[in-house]
Amino acid sequence: MLRGKIEIHNRISLDSSYQGKNDTLNLIYTPGVASVAKEISLDKKMVYDYTSKWNNVAIVCDGTRVLGLGDIGPEGALPVMEGKSVLFKVLGGINAFPLCIDTKDKEEIIRFVKAVQPVFGAVNIEDIESPKVLEIVEKLQKELSIPVFHDDQHGTAIIALAGLLNALRLLHKRINDIRVVIAGAGSAGYGIYRILKEAGFRNIVVTDSHGAIYKNRIKGISSPYKKEIADNTNPMKLSGSLIDVIKEADVIIGVSGKGNLISKDMVQSMNHDPIVFALSNPDPEILPSNASEGGARIIATGRSDFANQVNNAVVFPSILRALLDLRVTTLNEAILVSVATAIADIVDSRHLKFDYLIPKVDDPRIIHVVTDTLKNAIQKNIDKKLLE
Amino acid sequence: MLRGKIEIHNRISLDSSYQGKNDTLNLIYTPGVASVAKEISLDKKMVYDYTSKWNNVAIVCDGTRVLGLGDIGPEGALPVMEGKSVLFKVLGGINAFPLCIDTKDKEEIIRFVKAVQPVFGAVNIEDIESPKVLEIVEKLQKELSIPVFHDDQHGTAIIALAGLLNALRLLHKRINDIRVVIAGAGSAGYGIYRILKEAGFRNIVVTDSHGAIYKNRIKGISSPYKKEIADNTNPMKLSGSLIDVIKEADVIIGVSGKGNLISKDMVQSMNHDPIVFALSNPDPEILPSNASEGGARIIATGRSDFANQVNNAVVFPSILRALLDLRVTTLNEAILVSVATAIADIVDSRHLKFDYLIPKVDDPRIIHVVTDTLKNAIQKNIDKKLLE
Repeated sequence: MLRGKIEIHNRISLDSSYQGKNDTLNLIYTPGVASVAKEISLDKKMVYDYTSKWNNVAIVCDGTRVLGLGDIGPEGALPVMEGKSVLFKVLGGINAFPLCIDTKDKEEIIRFVKAVQPVFGAVNIEDIESPKVLEIVEKLQKELSIPVFHDDQHGTAIIALAGLLNALRLLHKRINDIRVVIAGAGSAGYGIYRILKEAGFRNIVVTDSHGAIYKNRIKGISSPYKKEIADNTNPMKLSGSLIDVIKEADVIIGVSGKGNLISKDMVQSMNHDPIVFALSNPDPEILPSNASEGGARIIATGRSDFANQVNNAVVFPSILRALLDLRVTTLNEAILVSVATAIADIVDSRHLKFDYLIPKVDDPRIIHVVTDTLKNAIQKNIDKKLLE
Repeated sequence: MLRGKIEIHNRISLDSSYQGKNDTLNLIYTPGVASVAKEISLDKKMVYDYTSKWNNVAIVCDGTRVLGLGDIGPEGALPVMEGKSVLFKVLGGINAFPLCIDTKDKEEIIRFVKAVQPVFGAVNIEDIESPKVLEIVEKLQKELSIPVFHDDQHGTAIIALAGLLNALRLLHKRINDIRVVIAGAGSAGYGIYRILKEAGFRNIVVTDSHGAIYKNRIKGISSPYKKEIADNTNPMKLSGSLIDVIKEADVIIGVSGKGNLISKDMVQSMNHDPIVFALSNPDPEILPSNASEGGARIIATGRSDFANQVNNAVVFPSILRALLDLRVTTLNEAILVSVATAIADIVDSRHLKFDYLIPKVDDPRIIHVVTDTLKNAIQKNIDKKLLE
């Protein structure tokens, strides 16, 4: 019974003389604080200088899609978000406060985040059910003046691409030639399809509970995001279930939230040298031992207790650190690809191995690499909106 | 340029081996955290054991009435609320997070606080304009299952009564005989009128910008709270401005938010041995030097740089500490009076002086006294709702 993984600390201490003109109480509280408050009210940007906004990230979650557990409510989500906050702190030096909220209503969630914007330098949206969350993120990105990162979508996409690039490097397979199957069309599946597309992958097939998504499929195309997937993937118009489309695929990326979705036999049916990323947490789509028995050459999961952890934790502290430090306000796919490539490149050829695809969560090089990548992206003006 | 007075710390550190089955990352994040999340989702009360909720307080402010500065916006309010957070931590051991929000809409503020309830063990409402805030607090107290403290109302009321009780003790004046004028009918004025009434004061006159409030006054009785004041104070039905009703009053309590509201002459017009509490911040209604020249016997302000600081900071950290520890869910006037009396009693007769009315902000006895008082209140069953 830990009673919480995080706590708030004061950065200054009160001195012991409370009645002096220049004591700390006077300075940090009343009457001294009034002058700072006034100054900010006259020039809002000063809030970055006089408060912790510059280093605050809101972790916003409604508890509807927590890990692989589903809708367990905001209270159930809280220990997960506190864990996330610890990682933000330890790996990125960021004050991330968990805001697990008691509303599932899309518009109310949007209003909530907009309301809380003054306190934070960035927002991290987390574990909200899809497709609701995709709409929330899209709208917030347009309407907020601070960056909105969606870890389930952007974080997973970056780290999956980084791992995949190095896996392909090891197996001498090329982006153009291979078929990637993404099992799961939620936030992660959507994010991964988009980043792979941007990175130049041509043959991507995404499956959902109705099987392969293809252009003009009738069943279950319930959101504009799924329609986008249908219109932009699956060039061969493969139909059928996962068991059908995984045949002869080179890569399977599991982001379905469903443990044991993939059998040994399914791995066996893949093209030579299969790459299996079973990223769902806590239960991966296939256990590494089974994937291995099915002939998988490279296996990764999202978990820290197996080899090859392909986990957002490698990305989100560093990318938020960079977003805060550079005051970036907008993200786009090109930037996500460049961050993924840069993270992949941290592992050089001498160190790259079948069980060491991407840097470890605490690799100190990550933050510098990600910050430099974002800086270059701004300089190259990839997206003019990047500039404030 | 302090760049923030608070920061979030992790209570556990990550160990250096990230791939072991029992490493910290596994435990605090994925997959280990899933079991705790699941447990809470099955029994919500466990959130008090497994997260920091038990010790988290939300400081909610819309920036409309910050100190005496008025509507300076949520960004302007943030350094003030961070200062408050420091005091919560240093004096009460509490994690208080400043939520300065970008909406002034009453219903939206209520929805915001309800939404964020899962993360916090208590709410402190702060520096929201009156009478809107009184309605917000009343509604939240009914609808939330965690305690809602309104520092401007409850905190100020407690500390004003504590100081006043000891001032009257020093001057041998009795509650029954005296006239107390409260300048200001906002949150603080409303709270003080209510606590004085409950404590047995009979002759209370509250003034607002239209002058003395009395039964059936037509002008400016714009809210049910002002009507309540009109119906329950001013037994002599005094009318006129502050300058009129302060004449022959024994006590003036300034909570108007207006500096220099009270002149030396006005103090001179009071009854013998005038008590002047000029509590507005940062500019008191009258400076202590002027009050003294006007003949005030006992003078207090809200500021730490004058003698006799009658400031909420004496109360809010300890009362929230007690509310959290005892899991109290409802406050009432009787409890507020008992806390005020207990705080007054900390200063015993030997130490009580004209410039030492109430314990100092950092007096370590306060927390124990307040907790004991609340405990007794529960045991005496003053309010059955106190028991969960």
